[in-house]
Amino acid sequence: MKELEDRIRQDGIVREGNVLKVDNFLNHQCDVALYDHMGAEWARLFAGKRIDKILTIEASGIGIACVAATHFGGVPVVFARKTESKNLDGDQYRTNITSYTKGREYQVIVAKRFLTAGEHVLIIDDFMAMGCAMNGLLQICDEAGVIVEGIGIAIEKGFQPGGDELRRRGYQVESLAIVKSMDAATGEIEFA
Amino acid sequence: MKELEDRIRQDGIVREGNVLKVDNFLNHQCDVALYDHMGAEWARLFAGKRIDKILTIEASGIGIACVAATHFGGVPVVFARKTESKNLDGDQYRTNITSYTKGREYQVIVAKRFLTAGEHVLIIDDFMAMGCAMNGLLQICDEAGVIVEGIGIAIEKGFQPGGDELRRRGYQVESLAIVKSMDAATGEIEFA
Repeated sequence: MKELEDRIRQDGIVREGNVLKVDNFLNHQCDVALYDHMGAEWARLFAGKRIDKILTIEASGIGIACVAATHFGGVPVVFARKTESKNLDGDQYRTNITSYTKGREYQVIVAKRFLTAGEHVLIIDDFMAMGCAMNGLLQICDEAGVIVEGIGIAIEKGFQPGGDELRRRGYQVESLAIVKSMDAATGEIEFA
Repeated sequence: MKELEDRIRQDGIVREGNVLKVDNFLNHQCDVALYDHMGAEWARLFAGKRIDKILTIEASGIGIACVAATHFGGVPVVFARKTESKNLDGDQYRTNITSYTKGREYQVIVAKRFLTAGEHVLIIDDFMAMGCAMNGLLQICDEAGVIVEGIGIAIEKGFQPGGDELRRRGYQVESLAIVKSMDAATGEIEFA
């Protein structure tokens, strides 16, 4: 998606350690007009698929998913919550996710009553790199017995394996910008 | 707002300790169509005011604020981040907030470059009870020198003092549903 690539080139900041800062428009300050165009693009890419619900993960996925949902007939959005509680409430799906960016493990939960077996789900998130968060969400989807119709990602780090592994497993992964390479020294970003 | 009151009566669950669970439509599963109507209602209530930006706080405020922003000409949304880090990065406004619901203190941060002195800001959040989170956001707004044009709340617990204290201080607080009383034994909820 050219608009998103242009915006990343304009406002993205490349840092050492494969960090791409896009907090100016994607995940601290939110460009809602851009979110709206992203939602329209996913609606085009997943056209013809039945989508009953959108699943995302807090915090940065929520705004993107909620605005995108308006392009899918206003379907409900469920966001997985990050928690450090050890509460073993049986009413929740739980999984552990390792964040390479933050160097720690955290737990995410989704209340069981918000994922019903047989529902058709689209998963949306802001970033995909190693795919750890996505694999956690997919594990929850498996456990719930929902049908994952597709995965919509704003920015995929194409030089890390998460996206392609999911494509190999048969998922329709639609990343609106795939970064092929980026250089912290020059600030240059190349897209696939 | 009748639609929101009806929804709270229908799906809200009252628990001991003044807890109102609305995670079925407001803050775990998100009814995006309802969010859209809430955004339209705030646009009506704050009509005539200049709004350059919407400020909210993660996680539950983000979806509501992003959908509402589409009714304010697609202005950017900035969400304050909750953090436990002790990082004293000078590029961020920081404040401590005590959560009575969760019984702990946490820190919220907003990058300084996303609030510019003189900007006209609308603050949006899902709940108001004691007003602790809102007072933290207002402190950040003061420090940044932005003009707070109003405060939009989905559900105010009218039997707790947060909303009225802010009105006494001169803020235009627009809560779409104000709970006057609720009873965990009967599940009854009365609105103001």
